[in-house]
Formats: sequence, C-alpha cells, structure tokens
Amino acid sequence: MKSTLALTIGDFNGIGPEIILKSITHSSFDKNIQPILIGSIEVFEYYARRLKLPLTFEPVQAVPSKFSSSAIPVIDTFPVTAKNIQAGKIAPDAGKCAGTAIERAAQLCSKNSVDAMVTAPISKEALHYAGYNFPGQTEMLALLSRSQKVTMMLVAKSFRVGLATIHLPISEVAQNIFQERITEKIETLDESLKRDFGIESPSIAVLGLNPHAGENGSIGKEEKEIIAPAIAKMRLKGITVEGPFAADGFFGTKREKKFDAVLAMYHDQGLIPLKMSGFHDGVNFSAGLKIVRTSPDHGTAFDLAGKGKANPQSMLAAINLACAISLNRKK
Amino acid sequence: MKSTLALTIGDFNGIGPEIILKSITHSSFDKNIQPILIGSIEVFEYYARRLKLPLTFEPVQAVPSKFSSSAIPVIDTFPVTAKNIQAGKIAPDAGKCAGTAIERAAQLCSKNSVDAMVTAPISKEALHYAGYNFPGQTEMLALLSRSQKVTMMLVAKSFRVGLATIHLPISEVAQNIFQERITEKIETLDESLKRDFGIESPSIAVLGLNPHAGENGSIGKEEKEIIAPAIAKMRLKGITVEGPFAADGFFGTKREKKFDAVLAMYHDQGLIPLKMSGFHDGVNFSAGLKIVRTSPDHGTAFDLAGKGKANPQSMLAAINLACAISLNRKK
Repeated sequence: MKSTLALTIGDFNGIGPEIILKSITHSSFDKNIQPILIGSIEVFEYYARRLKLPLTFEPVQAVPSKFSSSAIPVIDTFPVTAKNIQAGKIAPDAGKCAGTAIERAAQLCSKNSVDAMVTAPISKEALHYAGYNFPGQTEMLALLSRSQKVTMMLVAKSFRVGLATIHLPISEVAQNIFQERITEKIETLDESLKRDFGIESPSIAVLGLNPHAGENGSIGKEEKEIIAPAIAKMRLKGITVEGPFAADGFFGTKREKKFDAVLAMYHDQGLIPLKMSGFHDGVNFSAGLKIVRTSPDHGTAFDLAGKGKANPQSMLAAINLACAISLNRKK
Repeated sequence: MKSTLALTIGDFNGIGPEIILKSITHSSFDKNIQPILIGSIEVFEYYARRLKLPLTFEPVQAVPSKFSSSAIPVIDTFPVTAKNIQAGKIAPDAGKCAGTAIERAAQLCSKNSVDAMVTAPISKEALHYAGYNFPGQTEMLALLSRSQKVTMMLVAKSFRVGLATIHLPISEVAQNIFQERITEKIETLDESLKRDFGIESPSIAVLGLNPHAGENGSIGKEEKEIIAPAIAKMRLKGITVEGPFAADGFFGTKREKKFDAVLAMYHDQGLIPLKMSGFHDGVNFSAGLKIVRTSPDHGTAFDLAGKGKANPQSMLAAINLACAISLNRKK
C-alpha cells in the first residue's frame, strides 16, 4: 500500500508549483508515495511545460480508489488558467487558489482520504487579499482540523526545534512567555515526539528567553519566574525535560544532539541554529494538529519565481517527513 | 621588539588564573609577546604549583624596562594569599583583586606602558560585592580610558559580530533600538575594522530585529522606521553597509562570509551563530575603546574552577588578537 499525500499548490506566483513538480520527478522521490496535487491543473501543466518535465496530469474530483501509473491526479479547487500566472506578484487569484487548496487538503486529511498533506509556501498578503484572515497556514489548519494545541516545529534530520512564540515582533515576545504556554508547548512536543517520531522516551531541552538564560535573575526574571517553574511542573508529570539553557552556549557546544527536541522561546533563537545546521533540509511540521501536515521551511521566494532555479530539497524533505509521521501514527 | 600585554587575573575563584598560566606556557604561545600578569603573585604561584607548570614569577611595581627570560613579571594589586582562594565561590576579596587588576592594566594601557590588555573572566556579582558598580568590565574600561563609544564585538577568526544591545532582557531590547544607536554602532564598527583589523574598505551587514526582518512591516516596524533609515544615512556617509537582513536566512546561507562584520541587534542573535561557528575560538573585543582590550568570550566557569580542566583556547585567541590589533594600530 502506497502512502497518499495531498500536495497543495501554494502561491502559484511563487516557487510552489515548481518545487512540487521537481520533487515528484526527483530521482530520490520515494516510490511508495502517491502524490495527489491540489490547486489548479492548468497551472501545474504550465509549469511542467516550462520545466520540460515529462508529466501528464489527470483531473479528479476526489482521491481515486485506483491510481494511474502514467498520470498524476490533480484536484482543481479554483478556476484559473496559465494566463493568471504573474511570477513574483502578489495577487488575489493566487491567494484564492492557495487558500481553497489548503481547505480541500485539510478536508481530505480529516476524512482519512489521504494520509497527510504537504503545503507549498503561500503569500500571507495574497491570502489576505483573497479574503482569508489568518496569520498563516498553521493557524488556518488548526481551525479547519479542529485542533486546540499546535506548536510550530522545525525539523532538520534529527535536529528538532519547537517555538514558544512564532511570528511576533521582538517587542511582544516577553509578554507572550507565560507558564501555561510553556507547559503546553512542552506537552505538545513530548506527545509529538512519541506519536509522530516514534521516540519512546523523548527528552526535551528548554532554552532561556534572555541572554545567559537571565544570569540568575540579573538579566531578566522570566527564567526564574516562568520557565523554570514550568519545567519543574512538567518533570513532575513525568516528562524528561531540562533547562532553561543559555541559547548561545547550548548550541555552541552542540547540546541539541543530546535531546530529541529543543523548545526555543522565539523565532530567530530556534531558526538561526536550525538553518545553520542544514539550510536546505529544514521542514516545518505542525505538532499537535489532528492531521499530519508538513511544509518546506522557506517562503514563496518571489524573486526566484518562474526562473526554474528553485531548489526542491526542503520540499522533498517535507514530503518524506509527512510520510514518515503518518506511518508512525498508524503504528 | 616584543609586544607587551597586561593579563588581568579575573576572578581568582574562577578559571581566570588557570587559563592565563596555561596560555603563556602553551606550545602555540607567540614568543614575540611579553606577558605582564596583573593581580596577585601568590595566587598565580598557587595555581602554577597545582597545575605543575614550571614557572617562576617576579614581583614588579611597574612594567620593567628589561624583561627576565626566566621569570614572569607580576604586578600585585591586592594583598591576598593562597588561603583566600575558594574555588567556585563568589567572594568580595576575589572581586576586589579582579577590580584592582583591571584598574591597573587600564592605567598601564593609557600611559602606553603596555601595548594592550587581555582580561580574564570576572564575576559581576563578586565585583559588585567588592564595591564596583559596573554592569561589566567593558563599561568599567570605557570610563577608565575615557572612551565615549564602545561596541562589544565578538571575533572568531574572520567572523566578526558587533552587538547593538548587550546584556539586556529581551523585554527591553526593542525600546533600546533607536537610530542614533544603530548609526553609532555602524560607525564604530567601520572605524574599528579599518584601524584595528587593517581592512581598508570594510563592509558591514546589519541584521533585522524581528523575525523575517519584519516582513515588510507586518512583524514589527523597527526595520522600516529605524534600522533601514540608519543604514541609508551611513551609506550616504560613504560606509559600505547593507541590510537589514533576516537573521536566520542570513546565517543559514553563510552570508557572514561576504562581510567583514555583522551588526546584530541583540545578544543571542549574534552569539548563537558565533559560538556555533567556533566555540573555543571566540574573543570579545571592545571596539571603540581608546586602549586595546580583548577577553575570552566565556565566563568564570565556577563549576570548572580548581579542577585543572579549563580550556585556554579562547584566552590564547584573545591574547593573539590583542597583539594583532595593537600592531595594526601602530601602522
């Protein structure tokens, strides 16, 4: 039995369709995966021609019970043609196509019509223009799949980082670090490491918020008043969790290798080390979602759109991770 | 002519004396450097015995005009004996010895009695107990050497990071990012790269404060309102400076290699990549000080104190950098 994965088109004026097509035709693409493309068949056909990829597509209304060996099934979610493509531009039709594809893929996942979904990058602005009022895909999927607790996790091979706060300005980070949030993130990570990554007794490291992890309270109180008590509470619950660690020394001495996941307090604290350790290997995984969803950890790359130069490595890694997680969940 | 370097003892209950003695007896120690130890001769003698290092010391009141080839000159700044040593403890006598050594070394530098100073790590708490009310050594040295503009710079070989803010809690970082601070830091870095590092036409990269460098204003306004205008102003002045860059992508694609220095907005944003790129090579350099001062980029390591296991690599790198900078300044 092949794993079935819904791949959403992303913003078709970005590199989304390109990295999807490059991935499914890549020599390393796992033959045990059956992709189902979600978005616009005409857009996929256009990019396949541009990239000179020997692909044929088959329009389907739902996930077929039998798959053709010669054609890739595509579910059309929004009526656009190749003429709608404006590489590098933010446009409402691209936002609408991206949004409807996400909705459809989430539905397929929720009904178990597919095993998992992988989302190509979207433009938040285009999504907003199209009438979707979400900060990003993760929040949209939390609602669509009725999931309460979601933690953005970045995965580069065995290096896994969870984020306590995500796309917040630095001025708003500290006020968003509170005990319930930290305990929830630790629990979500612990559960995900077990269920999604098949790690029986996972260990988690928690970073401090401030320089030197607050240096015993002299550079910020959050470690003493919020983070350390949250860790203590989770240890009482039986979770293997340590910290708070000073982030620079932690990564400088490669301590992440001794833990199954690291909880960072804010975006750059987690993303700088992750991207330094493997820029093209990074995958974004929404831990805690009821459905399985991954995505490449880069954006639409509007500056690269339509040039045929986009690197599909992160997309391929996202596809492989989605497949692996869905198999782990079935065990 | 040998370069003369004053090496201050640091906190004698930490690893300071140990890494000084290990450095000056290390096989890679530069024979063109004449060290003058500042602190307590009895403490240095104690640690030399403990480490079984074949060293003899010579008490001096000032920098000698001729150096003995067999004994290391030591300027005693505070009367303590080996009995005062309490490895791993925060104590006022250690703070006082550390503080008086810094004062004396700064004086020697200001009078050109030595070429540069290298400071072993101190405990801020011990320094406070001893009556020194400074956030750290850098601020103390700025006052002692009457220097207005100082930028903390971390150097690991050709990777140089300047910090716009240093030991601030994350909650106070954003309010401390203002245009005059950014322009001052860019100017100080530019001048230091020329004068201290001998780079004729240096280039500087400036990082954004927020995730994705603010994503065009949607995740924080500081990039648009403060950092970008500061960069524009400095470019008009003829400085080669670019940015603001999203920190994760910048370091993930190794763009620091294309610049002579990177200005980070806060501690961990600069220190995580620096320590990941070379944990034991990092040197702290106070750019903008009238005198030349470097230090290892680690702390007192009280947990390692007295065990003989401290790694002198960062101290050796600090000694070499202080020597190189003082030679560049003389050119």
